[in-house]
Amino acid sequence: MTMNKPLHPRILRQLAEQEVLINRRNLPDYSTWDNGIVQRWKDCVVTAAHVPIAWRYDMNPQTNPYGMERLGINAAFNAGAIYLDGRFLLVIRTEGADRKSFFAVAESETGLDGFRFREEPCLIPELDEKDAPTNVYDMRLTQHEDGWIYGIFCVERKDPNAPEGDLSSAVAQCGIVRTKDLHTWERLPDFKSPSAQQRNVVLHPEFVKGQYAFYTRPQDSFIEAGKGGGIGWAFSKSMNPAVVTSESAFEPRQYHTIKEMKNGQGPAPIKTKEGWLHLAHGVRGCAAGLRYVLYMFMTSLDDPSKVIYTPGGYFLAPEGGERVGDVSNVLFSNGWCATPDGNVFIYYASSDTRLHVATSTIDKLVDYCKNTPPDPLKSHLCVKQRLDLVRANRAYMES
Amino acid sequence: MTMNKPLHPRILRQLAEQEVLINRRNLPDYSTWDNGIVQRWKDCVVTAAHVPIAWRYDMNPQTNPYGMERLGINAAFNAGAIYLDGRFLLVIRTEGADRKSFFAVAESETGLDGFRFREEPCLIPELDEKDAPTNVYDMRLTQHEDGWIYGIFCVERKDPNAPEGDLSSAVAQCGIVRTKDLHTWERLPDFKSPSAQQRNVVLHPEFVKGQYAFYTRPQDSFIEAGKGGGIGWAFSKSMNPAVVTSESAFEPRQYHTIKEMKNGQGPAPIKTKEGWLHLAHGVRGCAAGLRYVLYMFMTSLDDPSKVIYTPGGYFLAPEGGERVGDVSNVLFSNGWCATPDGNVFIYYASSDTRLHVATSTIDKLVDYCKNTPPDPLKSHLCVKQRLDLVRANRAYMES
Repeated sequence: MTMNKPLHPRILRQLAEQEVLINRRNLPDYSTWDNGIVQRWKDCVVTAAHVPIAWRYDMNPQTNPYGMERLGINAAFNAGAIYLDGRFLLVIRTEGADRKSFFAVAESETGLDGFRFREEPCLIPELDEKDAPTNVYDMRLTQHEDGWIYGIFCVERKDPNAPEGDLSSAVAQCGIVRTKDLHTWERLPDFKSPSAQQRNVVLHPEFVKGQYAFYTRPQDSFIEAGKGGGIGWAFSKSMNPAVVTSESAFEPRQYHTIKEMKNGQGPAPIKTKEGWLHLAHGVRGCAAGLRYVLYMFMTSLDDPSKVIYTPGGYFLAPEGGERVGDVSNVLFSNGWCATPDGNVFIYYASSDTRLHVATSTIDKLVDYCKNTPPDPLKSHLCVKQRLDLVRANRAYMES
Repeated sequence: MTMNKPLHPRILRQLAEQEVLINRRNLPDYSTWDNGIVQRWKDCVVTAAHVPIAWRYDMNPQTNPYGMERLGINAAFNAGAIYLDGRFLLVIRTEGADRKSFFAVAESETGLDGFRFREEPCLIPELDEKDAPTNVYDMRLTQHEDGWIYGIFCVERKDPNAPEGDLSSAVAQCGIVRTKDLHTWERLPDFKSPSAQQRNVVLHPEFVKGQYAFYTRPQDSFIEAGKGGGIGWAFSKSMNPAVVTSESAFEPRQYHTIKEMKNGQGPAPIKTKEGWLHLAHGVRGCAAGLRYVLYMFMTSLDDPSKVIYTPGGYFLAPEGGERVGDVSNVLFSNGWCATPDGNVFIYYASSDTRLHVATSTIDKLVDYCKNTPPDPLKSHLCVKQRLDLVRANRAYMES
């Protein structure tokens, strides 16, 4: 990069420091938590500090004599992910200092480090500029067998029925774009479903009985799952428009589990010989607010809404520095990539602040889902389940 | 330990690393907080990483070819404690990745380090397997003068009256076991009291007027203390069954104190020449949820429900790494040990995640309770209280 005009020394330093950050090689994190199922990596793959300096600073020394930031970035987190033409592409929920999110693409060759934002953030076309949503976030990418890459994301508007003085209540619905390259985005009509609110909608990558199939998350109100909740399953004949007339919950919430209060599909599932691998989030309440963890399950190749393996407990929970952020005690994932050699790159965000990667393989994840026993739901049965393990292990521990 | 069958290298490494962890010597933590009343120690005494590898991994290489964890442990925290035959025994709330807690005993010779779990977790007998509680936790151990060691713990079931779709509300009641050795547990009928919910029930170690005496915490609902709250006092003629017909709150909650929203007895009190030493927790609300701190008070030898000393403010509050965990901003203690030489080992958990030790002596704790002035309840009076101290100190500060 050559500069044809003098830049403020602060901005020059920011540019240089960001290059160091982006070029830093990531290393597996062996120092802490280690269960053999999934490997955490030391560095975050994307943070607010990765967002281009030119997106944040006015570089004109005349209008920015102090070299100060003009449009701050608060966070870079929940990312859709796709492995395309040998590269790892993320569509990142990028949040300004003003609390509004937008989408931005970052690319890497390794999937572990070197993620660099493209030159400009995504300008997603609006259906109706006057009725444009207040916020958009959490895009799931699905490479569908129809040839398109779909981006399904949450669109949020102020609740028109909110009581006077309530400036928080919102209505969450589901927006849809499609693309071939993550450069040009075609906006399709918003997803229509019987539910008052929709979040965590994900498009299944294959036709099911000739129709487009969706994972949904019917819920009554903005934050609470209410009577609904659970991960639903729904069909639409078309994507333009996508209209589902019924949703059936096939992966419900459950009392005193890691998915007691809410749950939702993460990214689109990964196809394996033994079934579809699913990554989801589960939520419980505690004295310090909500706690979000990630869990897995598998569904049948014949029927992607038929659960065949449900390993008990969580797959990943906040650990170390992940525990604290803008919204503490949260892990969330809406993107993962399986590469042709069977590796899996799981992009998960911690505490609504930053984006991490954890790695595993298809074989390990299938083994995990098949051979981790289901949650027996009561303490007494959990002890018996563990005693079976302890006693079977005795043969391998004898002196 | 010699292995008669080949173990997966990952599991061998886990076993070796755990031995290093358990054999690490603990040191007093002089680096941070220091008030002369109580000494923190650097390392946690028990964490999830202390839980035996054989409780978590399937060691059979045929059925676990990748050497992956099968039954994860999420946390090891709130522990009952007893000093028995010259050893420190803890009954630890051990929580699986599936959120269910169970009890497990760990022992140490020093009380400060070297805590090693026994070979198997506790299989507490159930009164009725069909109606077994969903969760059990927070056992208080009392070495009663009747010759038994009692374990009083919380049992939790789904609230049968919860509104449709509410998968969180629970009913907390109190379970009772007795033992001589913490190996064999005799289950007694659950505690019966006039309160809709009971948590933090603790058995007093002596008969009072010929009856068993209990510290209770009457509360209206699962999380909120409601109109009730405070530490109560109740009697039962028998432990089999333990039935109390009235509870009187003798240590109430109080406006704008560290026990504004909830409070509860910690472990059973320690008898001293000058009265019963009590450790308790106090709770207040804030924008980030509830904040739990520990406080102390003393009651009369003649009447263990008559408060005689109430040092103002907290005794221990979350500090440094204790502040963050599964349920942040929480210190909780349900176990401490007084040794014959007058030392006190306080086992306290931080943020529902891990277990620490802090040490003091009977003499220091009695001095603390007697000579720390009570909370004057208003800022203006707090300033006057502090000015008295400042001005009295002037005689010792003159140059």
